[in-house]
Amino acid sequence: MATVSLSVSTVKPLADRVFVKISPQEEKTAGGILLPDTAKEKPQVGEIVAVGPGKRNDDGSRTEPEVKVGDKVLYSKYAGTDIKLGNEDYVLLSEKDILAVVN
Amino acid sequence: MATVSLSVSTVKPLADRVFVKISPQEEKTAGGILLPDTAKEKPQVGEIVAVGPGKRNDDGSRTEPEVKVGDKVLYSKYAGTDIKLGNEDYVLLSEKDILAVVN
Amino acid sequence: MATVSLSVSTVKPLADRVFVKISPQEEKTAGGILLPDTAKEKPQVGEIVAVGPGKRNDDGSRTEPEVKVGDKVLYSKYAGTDIKLGNEDYVLLSEKDILAVVN
Amino acid sequence: MATVSLSVSTVKPLADRVFVKISPQEEKTAGGILLPDTAKEKPQVGEIVAVGPGKRNDDGSRTEPEVKVGDKVLYSKYAGTDIKLGNEDYVLLSEKDILAVVN
Amino acid sequence: MATVSLSVSTVKPLADRVFVKISPQEEKTAGGILLPDTAKEKPQVGEIVAVGPGKRNDDGSRTEPEVKVGDKVLYSKYAGTDIKLGNEDYVLLSEKDILAVVN
Amino acid sequence: MATVSLSVSTVKPLADRVFVKISPQEEKTAGGILLPDTAKEKPQVGEIVAVGPGKRNDDGSRTEPEVKVGDKVLYSKYAGTDIKLGNEDYVLLSEKDILAVVN
Amino acid sequence: MATVSLSVSTVKPLADRVFVKISPQEEKTAGGILLPDTAKEKPQVGEIVAVGPGKRNDDGSRTEPEVKVGDKVLYSKYAGTDIKLGNEDYVLLSEKDILAVVN
Repeated sequence: MATVSLSVSTVKPLADRVFVKISPQEEKTAGGILLPDTAKEKPQVGEIVAVGPGKRNDDGSRTEPEVKVGDKVLYSKYAGTDIKLGNEDYVLLSEKDILAVVN
Repeated sequence: MATVSLSVSTVKPLADRVFVKISPQEEKTAGGILLPDTAKEKPQVGEIVAVGPGKRNDDGSRTEPEVKVGDKVLYSKYAGTDIKLGNEDYVLLSEKDILAVVN
Repeated sequence: MATVSLSVSTVKPLADRVFVKISPQEEKTAGGILLPDTAKEKPQVGEIVAVGPGKRNDDGSRTEPEVKVGDKVLYSKYAGTDIKLGNEDYVLLSEKDILAVVN
Repeated sequence: MATVSLSVSTVKPLADRVFVKISPQEEKTAGGILLPDTAKEKPQVGEIVAVGPGKRNDDGSRTEPEVKVGDKVLYSKYAGTDIKLGNEDYVLLSEKDILAVVN
Repeated sequence: MATVSLSVSTVKPLADRVFVKISPQEEKTAGGILLPDTAKEKPQVGEIVAVGPGKRNDDGSRTEPEVKVGDKVLYSKYAGTDIKLGNEDYVLLSEKDILAVVN
Repeated sequence: MATVSLSVSTVKPLADRVFVKISPQEEKTAGGILLPDTAKEKPQVGEIVAVGPGKRNDDGSRTEPEVKVGDKVLYSKYAGTDIKLGNEDYVLLSEKDILAVVN
Repeated sequence: MATVSLSVSTVKPLADRVFVKISPQEEKTAGGILLPDTAKEKPQVGEIVAVGPGKRNDDGSRTEPEVKVGDKVLYSKYAGTDIKLGNEDYVLLSEKDILAVVN
């Protein structure tokens, strides 16, 4: 039977996907990021823990990812698929949903 | 008349489709995957039992699949077409709906 | 006047279309396909009785169909155009709506 | 002033359009086509009375039409633009809305 | 100040647009066009009074228009932008919204 | 701090955008344009005051604009972004939203 | 744990994104920009503080950005992702959402 013991190290993203550990979000931090009170999409901070091999092009080559494991990134809160492993929150994103690196 | 005895081995996916046996999902497992309580798409775990020959490109060549039979995969719960064979649950997915390999 | 006597042999699908005789669907069959009780698209079984010449590419060539007359196929119940000839049910599908061959 | 006397012979379809005389549809005919009682798009039978020169490609060439004047065709009842000339019903269709030739 | 005296001769359509004088539409004319009583898009007759230079292709060339000044055309009543000059009704259409020439 | 003194001469449109001074619209003018009483998109007249360098193509080249500063143009009233400078009304449009030149 | 001290200098936009400091918007300024009272998208003024490396093309090359750090720009108020750092408002935009440079 297909039983799976999931841990962070077993998750290998495909194509242009990245696996991101979500940073806890305090609403107000001196010098930190603040979620503005608007109806627009909200930014979220996380750290990349795994990166896929890159998007496959039509000619079989791949577009190399622009981000790497360890990068801290801003992404839209509504993008991707949330995953919980133990007590930690993760998200599987397409690289195009990453707005900026904030190392 | 077109009567068909369906079994797992008779299902041959076309193009970039994969045939996946769905893993039973316990809501809370130590070290396992947890479905977060959000409105976003939910991840699901399964094991690939058949893989199509790959997406046909415009020049007649094919893009070779990135996954293989036996791979355990994460995919979005709302993707693809569910199929029940006997007492087992399966899903026919496009390879692009697979988020990550979790072997 | 444009009167037409329709029979199975007179239907010649265009481009990438296939003409499929729909298999009667029993809800529960030992070893057969079962429609799962979900809101997702439901699979349907049928047998191909005619295949179009293939999708025309931009350079005038055609992409050869991956299926042939006599193939038993799974397709989404909501795809294509249903046609009744005498007492038999048929459907005209695009090849891309065929999920798998189940010979 | 731009007054126009329309008759069948004056209608010259552009590009990939075809001009089709709609066949009267009896709901139940032995050996004929029956409209199934579903929510899906309904097929309709007609005879082609004029064919456009074919879709223009990006390089200036044209894709030759796959149908010709006199072909009897199945098309979706909801496709195209209906036109009445005298007491006859016609429809202007794109060739891609033709499902099959049924000569 | 940008004041403009508009007359038919001053209107130069851009790209693949055509400028059409709308023909008055009598609902029932012997041998003329009749609007069928359906929910589908209604055809309209007009005469072309100006034609743009053609759609610009990606390589800088243009696709030559298939219609010319003086052509009487059928188009969908709901396409384009209506313009009134004096007491006359005109419409600015993309060439792709023209269904057929009816000279 | 990023304070900006905006005047017409400081606005440099990017890519295929044009900056247009909106002409005051009298509802009924002898020989002028009249807004027809329909539910379709309404035309508007303006004069181009600045033109972007042209749309960048995939190979790095640009498609040269078809309009120039000083051209009087018809465009759809609902296109683009309205801007007020002092007491004058302007609009930033993509060139594709310009229907015709009416010099 | 992935804690991040965000400041303006740490934000590195990816691909064709730009990081913009939003200019405070007075509703009525002599010679400045005024938001017209319409239902259309509203323009906003800001100053670019960081620019991504440019959109990656299919062949691996990049399209060089048309804007640079220090440019004052007009963009649509509803585009992008708002970010607050300390007491300042910023927005992460795609370059295509920038309407014009207003230096």
